[in-house]
Amino acid sequence: MSILIKGGTVVTADLSYRADVYCAEGKIQAIGENLDVPAGCEVVDAGDLLVMPGGIDPHTHMQLPFMGTVASEDFFTGSSAGAAGGTTSIIDFVIPAPQQPIMDAYHQWMDWAKKSATDYSFHVAITWWDESVYKDMGTLVQEHGINSFKHFMAYKNAIMCEDETLVNSFSRCLELGAMPTVHAENGDLVFHLQKKILERGITGPEGHPLSRPTEVEGEAANRAIRIAQALNVPLYCVHVSCEESLQAITRARNEGQRVYGEVLAGHLEIDESVYQNEDWDYAAGHVMSPPFRSKKHQDALWKGLQSGNLQTTATDHCCFCADQKAMGKKDFSMIPNGTAGIEDRMSVLWDSGVASGKLTPNEFVGVTSTNAAKIFNIYPRKGSISVGADADIVLWDANGSRTISAKTHHQNIDFNIFEGRTVKGIAVHTLSQGKLVWTNGELRTVRGTGKNIKRPAYGSTFDAMQKHTAQNEPKAVVRNK
Amino acid sequence: MSILIKGGTVVTADLSYRADVYCAEGKIQAIGENLDVPAGCEVVDAGDLLVMPGGIDPHTHMQLPFMGTVASEDFFTGSSAGAAGGTTSIIDFVIPAPQQPIMDAYHQWMDWAKKSATDYSFHVAITWWDESVYKDMGTLVQEHGINSFKHFMAYKNAIMCEDETLVNSFSRCLELGAMPTVHAENGDLVFHLQKKILERGITGPEGHPLSRPTEVEGEAANRAIRIAQALNVPLYCVHVSCEESLQAITRARNEGQRVYGEVLAGHLEIDESVYQNEDWDYAAGHVMSPPFRSKKHQDALWKGLQSGNLQTTATDHCCFCADQKAMGKKDFSMIPNGTAGIEDRMSVLWDSGVASGKLTPNEFVGVTSTNAAKIFNIYPRKGSISVGADADIVLWDANGSRTISAKTHHQNIDFNIFEGRTVKGIAVHTLSQGKLVWTNGELRTVRGTGKNIKRPAYGSTFDAMQKHTAQNEPKAVVRNK
Amino acid sequence: MSILIKGGTVVTADLSYRADVYCAEGKIQAIGENLDVPAGCEVVDAGDLLVMPGGIDPHTHMQLPFMGTVASEDFFTGSSAGAAGGTTSIIDFVIPAPQQPIMDAYHQWMDWAKKSATDYSFHVAITWWDESVYKDMGTLVQEHGINSFKHFMAYKNAIMCEDETLVNSFSRCLELGAMPTVHAENGDLVFHLQKKILERGITGPEGHPLSRPTEVEGEAANRAIRIAQALNVPLYCVHVSCEESLQAITRARNEGQRVYGEVLAGHLEIDESVYQNEDWDYAAGHVMSPPFRSKKHQDALWKGLQSGNLQTTATDHCCFCADQKAMGKKDFSMIPNGTAGIEDRMSVLWDSGVASGKLTPNEFVGVTSTNAAKIFNIYPRKGSISVGADADIVLWDANGSRTISAKTHHQNIDFNIFEGRTVKGIAVHTLSQGKLVWTNGELRTVRGTGKNIKRPAYGSTFDAMQKHTAQNEPKAVVRNK
Amino acid sequence: MSILIKGGTVVTADLSYRADVYCAEGKIQAIGENLDVPAGCEVVDAGDLLVMPGGIDPHTHMQLPFMGTVASEDFFTGSSAGAAGGTTSIIDFVIPAPQQPIMDAYHQWMDWAKKSATDYSFHVAITWWDESVYKDMGTLVQEHGINSFKHFMAYKNAIMCEDETLVNSFSRCLELGAMPTVHAENGDLVFHLQKKILERGITGPEGHPLSRPTEVEGEAANRAIRIAQALNVPLYCVHVSCEESLQAITRARNEGQRVYGEVLAGHLEIDESVYQNEDWDYAAGHVMSPPFRSKKHQDALWKGLQSGNLQTTATDHCCFCADQKAMGKKDFSMIPNGTAGIEDRMSVLWDSGVASGKLTPNEFVGVTSTNAAKIFNIYPRKGSISVGADADIVLWDANGSRTISAKTHHQNIDFNIFEGRTVKGIAVHTLSQGKLVWTNGELRTVRGTGKNIKRPAYGSTFDAMQKHTAQNEPKAVVRNK
Repeated sequence: MSILIKGGTVVTADLSYRADVYCAEGKIQAIGENLDVPAGCEVVDAGDLLVMPGGIDPHTHMQLPFMGTVASEDFFTGSSAGAAGGTTSIIDFVIPAPQQPIMDAYHQWMDWAKKSATDYSFHVAITWWDESVYKDMGTLVQEHGINSFKHFMAYKNAIMCEDETLVNSFSRCLELGAMPTVHAENGDLVFHLQKKILERGITGPEGHPLSRPTEVEGEAANRAIRIAQALNVPLYCVHVSCEESLQAITRARNEGQRVYGEVLAGHLEIDESVYQNEDWDYAAGHVMSPPFRSKKHQDALWKGLQSGNLQTTATDHCCFCADQKAMGKKDFSMIPNGTAGIEDRMSVLWDSGVASGKLTPNEFVGVTSTNAAKIFNIYPRKGSISVGADADIVLWDANGSRTISAKTHHQNIDFNIFEGRTVKGIAVHTLSQGKLVWTNGELRTVRGTGKNIKRPAYGSTFDAMQKHTAQNEPKAVVRNK
Repeated sequence: MSILIKGGTVVTADLSYRADVYCAEGKIQAIGENLDVPAGCEVVDAGDLLVMPGGIDPHTHMQLPFMGTVASEDFFTGSSAGAAGGTTSIIDFVIPAPQQPIMDAYHQWMDWAKKSATDYSFHVAITWWDESVYKDMGTLVQEHGINSFKHFMAYKNAIMCEDETLVNSFSRCLELGAMPTVHAENGDLVFHLQKKILERGITGPEGHPLSRPTEVEGEAANRAIRIAQALNVPLYCVHVSCEESLQAITRARNEGQRVYGEVLAGHLEIDESVYQNEDWDYAAGHVMSPPFRSKKHQDALWKGLQSGNLQTTATDHCCFCADQKAMGKKDFSMIPNGTAGIEDRMSVLWDSGVASGKLTPNEFVGVTSTNAAKIFNIYPRKGSISVGADADIVLWDANGSRTISAKTHHQNIDFNIFEGRTVKGIAVHTLSQGKLVWTNGELRTVRGTGKNIKRPAYGSTFDAMQKHTAQNEPKAVVRNK
Repeated sequence: MSILIKGGTVVTADLSYRADVYCAEGKIQAIGENLDVPAGCEVVDAGDLLVMPGGIDPHTHMQLPFMGTVASEDFFTGSSAGAAGGTTSIIDFVIPAPQQPIMDAYHQWMDWAKKSATDYSFHVAITWWDESVYKDMGTLVQEHGINSFKHFMAYKNAIMCEDETLVNSFSRCLELGAMPTVHAENGDLVFHLQKKILERGITGPEGHPLSRPTEVEGEAANRAIRIAQALNVPLYCVHVSCEESLQAITRARNEGQRVYGEVLAGHLEIDESVYQNEDWDYAAGHVMSPPFRSKKHQDALWKGLQSGNLQTTATDHCCFCADQKAMGKKDFSMIPNGTAGIEDRMSVLWDSGVASGKLTPNEFVGVTSTNAAKIFNIYPRKGSISVGADADIVLWDANGSRTISAKTHHQNIDFNIFEGRTVKGIAVHTLSQGKLVWTNGELRTVRGTGKNIKRPAYGSTFDAMQKHTAQNEPKAVVRNK
Repeated sequence: MSILIKGGTVVTADLSYRADVYCAEGKIQAIGENLDVPAGCEVVDAGDLLVMPGGIDPHTHMQLPFMGTVASEDFFTGSSAGAAGGTTSIIDFVIPAPQQPIMDAYHQWMDWAKKSATDYSFHVAITWWDESVYKDMGTLVQEHGINSFKHFMAYKNAIMCEDETLVNSFSRCLELGAMPTVHAENGDLVFHLQKKILERGITGPEGHPLSRPTEVEGEAANRAIRIAQALNVPLYCVHVSCEESLQAITRARNEGQRVYGEVLAGHLEIDESVYQNEDWDYAAGHVMSPPFRSKKHQDALWKGLQSGNLQTTATDHCCFCADQKAMGKKDFSMIPNGTAGIEDRMSVLWDSGVASGKLTPNEFVGVTSTNAAKIFNIYPRKGSISVGADADIVLWDANGSRTISAKTHHQNIDFNIFEGRTVKGIAVHTLSQGKLVWTNGELRTVRGTGKNIKRPAYGSTFDAMQKHTAQNEPKAVVRNK
């Protein structure tokens, strides 16, 4: 089966130019003007459209068991909703329970993911430490195509990593050529503040942001970054939500350190005032960690994207419906943390970013797709429009618009944090593995067609870092006595 | 007994002016020109001298039991050496062993300190946590005049505080109106790096700074500061040795946070190259934590003093002789950490600071005496030349000079990190409690004449911080359902 | 005539304590408990009041000829309004027209100032340059007690200083031991933006802030600071209104440079939204340069005061009534620039600063009085409560309140930027030269009783800077050929 | 004529991969494994070599008339020396004398450049202002393919731009879609300091850096950046030599501003100590502006490249021989400013940057070629290895080495600032327009074969900036009266 994307404007992270794109066997086979294509090739008219690499969402949690319930969106429904919004790959998370063998958890998640309609890959969380964890990390990298490990600095008494584990795991990442990533919030502080706020009689969702002020995040981000610096390992910070953690990243980058930052569409756009809403369901529907912040942080995050101090955008897509959220009716700290977004990320970012002149279309491609592919070492297979690349492509109408609503979205959740917002910039057609999975409003995803994308270790910066380390190896002083 | 200081130039943190100073009964009784004094009053000619508040060293460890030995300088010899250098008060540390009842440790140290020749006071370290610690902190503040508590973020498996204890203790400090202080180094990282460096075959003192790079300190300083910010409690960082921790303090101060920083004379002046010295004793003689740093950090620290981002200077005076240092002959991590300095701090600071034009004489008084008195709430009793203040006074010859040497110093240690340096600016006479304890090179200190100085809680910034907290108290949202 | 302030709490920049204060012959004669005073001495009951140094406003423009009109407030009315608000000294500006001999302008302003009811002093502006200006600066410093010179970096084609003049004048200040000060806005940019905005058809007061965005100020502040750095002269920046110029000052201070910053009560409290008001008179009533800014800048300025990066508060008191403002009805760039404030500065600052817990009462004294006295070298004569100081004192009721209004204020202007605001913290009695000039709501100022305060050159930092310069004098390399 | 580069590793700014590259008619025709090529095609074995885009030096001054003499290197010798080092394109400068019609200067330089052996392009300097300059800028952009204009903020009384001209020219650039660039040094300060230093009797080359301290550069960079911000135009800063200007760029970028920075190989590697050399010729041989700086600035500049805050590397290649430098024997300010470097830039950068692990090979391609092509809008024609691109290619031996010397270099100058340094990383073959111009140590450049590269206006960021401006257009307030 083959398909010709005809007459569009190819937009990559580098460049914009007019060209046809011919795909067959799941790959891009040719790019150019007036391409010769086989008879019977399906033709998609891209005359007024932009032809961009399909979005990569490097932070999702499909069907996650968490806080006593399970996220409502599974790999099939979630990947389908992504396709409707132009996203064609996700990187989800394997999260072992403390003491659970890492490989068991890995296989569990791989099994769940089989139903995905588009390609997927996994970060693996390190939630505890012993020799088996050390060993399994090696197995995952060397045999299973895992090149990144996640560390939760929050969620005390559950999956939180102490510094000792951070140090051990980061060191192991360096040996393996894998990227450590962190959820940066000081879990001890959060725990203390939750208790204090509940003691004051604040039990509603407005207590959630009070228990996780920005210094809690900035502290943890800085800590992880400095540990990475001491060990000379790169680092990726997920869901940077505030100026403090952005500044920690920016400081480190300005010193030449290899640190990367991800920002969620929600943190760029949603204001902390949602937690003050008098409708409990509405307020609770926005409970996620880190919480939404004040306007000044959103301004800062946009500047982070513009300056390149933040490289990727994600959603932390993790769906809990109203009845699940209700578990925390009497205590905000029991509200399952998570919001949806995979379907809306790209439109929201185009609308606020490109239509406003904050980002160029090329930068948009970088932050929604290419940069994630590079950092997680699957570029140019993913994240590019180039001959030989996977034919994961979105045809984008920069002038098209739609109004976001839980009533019409494809996500398996009864709430949408962007409810009612009309966005400019929409996916008209989405190709996954060279097939149309979303076209003119019709969803054609097929359960189980997605593939696990193995990601090789030792992305490009590792070589440089190891060369640097080797050159700066300290030596013992020779003394007579 | 009374004494008239005649014809000198009074120099305070604010102002310089010519005046006589009359002292009796241990206090300053009058300041002015041509004072009438009783017959028989001793007269000290201060014609060419500066009359300044005696130095306060807010960070000493006399006769400390540490790393398997005991510091060689006791409260009498140490306070005497201080007097010879113009320092008339110290704030030392009570350091309970983990699980040791805090009050037991307190009484032990109080007993040791009785032999002091000049006034003294104590910070108390919080090295572990349970309800008894919580309670004892209250007793110390309310009944014993303790208003500051120290937290070691390094020394894993010994006296290190985990974040949970930091959070608990800082919160308790806020309740009590006491100042939390921190030794900022990430103990988990130090532990890991020590192991790694020893594994590489680096066992000499050059391994010491390699195991404690500046990011280890910067991280911990930032962590403590952000915890203090989240809890709205002030914070004092001891021995800031590098740009990273200075910047953490500076950032917080620029945001309006009440954070204070102390710098040691040694960190301002000594270079990390000492650890590369081929003489093991020389290199080991400089082993202290944090270690000495490269030149760029010294430049930064001086700017910290000039800008007011660092307020106090100290010594971390903690003496170990060559035979004690030798305990780490085969493993740098076993070398007892500590260096001397109480006798030399003021001369070294005058020489490098005032004689060079970096600081004004008034600023010198601020950073050697007045600021410590204010921060630890004993101003103007200490740290001022004012009627009613304790007559702790140094008469300073800005043009006098001396050459520092372990052969001639009064400190009870066989090593001096400033060995051979000729400094401009010396104490000609020192008064403690209105009596000459050092005069023209003669030491007249008397064992046991020093008094314990009780320091009241709730220094001036606490009121403001509590008012601020009260005004910003969060409230629950009223919801119908 | 003598007066006893009985039973109050003396609050200085350093300290708070209970004491009586006895004044006679215009000076403070004694401070202490239960003072013996002569019979017939007037007694003021200060039982519930704070006894603080009278305010110093280091930036006023009484009866200034400017933009084709003359400020409505003269030295008598202005100094009286100040007294009603607790301010007892001003430093006003002599502003020569370009090419006007400096000494002529100086004598003109000295003549105008004779009617002042409280003490005054002058900065002198350098608005042009030739040898006579060079010489007159010397005369002013050496014979007339002037120790500061002002430079306008804005007002192109009028009183603007080009860089060449800045360099010449700053160099001359260094020779003379006088403090250069700057109004920091890039006049070329302002000129260009005014033209562009008028061309777009924006002629109302909303055009004023558009023509003076914050980068215009930040640029100029940084320029002046770096010129001062290259020449090794201290610098004082007047009316810092935004984050950019505050950051320029902060950067320099953190590098150890001697730079000072002043902030106006208006910039701390008033929002730029005033220029959008539909009432032209209201909007125009707020036209001053730099303009009022957005909320984030106000937050930054408060942090500047808290951190000590800004040291003084002022008003730029320069009154133009509605009929004067109307000169710019058709063109915002013709609206006379200026607002009132001398009467309200201290109350507004107490209310927003101390009552909220941002500042301690001691810090309040620092930023309203003591710091200005120190920087401009009239401390402790002004800005202190100490024996021998001028008896300029305010008795403050921290719990008293009043509502600000142009209808009731003593300022000679028909507008008040704080109209309708109720402030906590008021002056109950004000003493100037030991006499009550404001007492329980009654104004008792007398025309012409104010004295010109001569300010000696070479404030305390100059010595240090010159020592530093001398030590770092570059030398020629000796070469054979 | 056609050529096949066989078996090498293609290295672009994005990616490294094994492929053959086939070139014909001056363009890259195909990239891939086992390419079919016409018979007779020349084959170059690239088995152990890296195949990278030829270097672009965006800052050269061939045969520049300057300071009373003419640079010794002409367009032919200079472009040939570039080819020997792997550089295949330059962007030189048209510099009109004040009052000289811009178009006259343009034609003069175009005529001189005809002899170039490789491709070239021009920035045009704006050294004065009137209506004709405004008009000629339009002609140059619209008819001659110029898309960048240079502004000298130094060289007072010669080619220096005052702020008024900066503002006018930057505004014009915005209208035209052209990039303004600046040489950032405060010319008034330099002029003043030169005079002062000469007055002190310092006449040798050591006076040169004393007259241009880093604050002089940092000030000007910040000024240009803030003017660009106020006008919403992008900006490119040439030869960033110190931390201060790097920080100005970094601050602006972190705020989302579109500012770019260039660094010279010399500033990255050479230390200011050269000016203290006792050999006058040696010291004078290093005189260029900005001067070489202390080590800390070199560290900062490398971090600037690593972080992406600096995007391009250049040389400011401007050759003056010893007899020309001798014009300043009695007065350092008369020494013609300039040093060579075009031949050595790439090797020096590889050696210090890539061989040390500071940069990845891909980043090396970015900073030596691709980024300049993107910023000056000739990408992917230049700066890429892609089908359709100009066949300007360097075949690089990462392990090859050579020792730099004026005795053996191809530059037409008797001095080399890298004299004696052995560098790892050399150009083995260089192709320009698909022809070998340097191969195994043999130079085959032909006079006059280089072409003028026209650069279109409106690089990719302009669209975004104009969209942004349009969305933020201010509006007049509607008022009744």
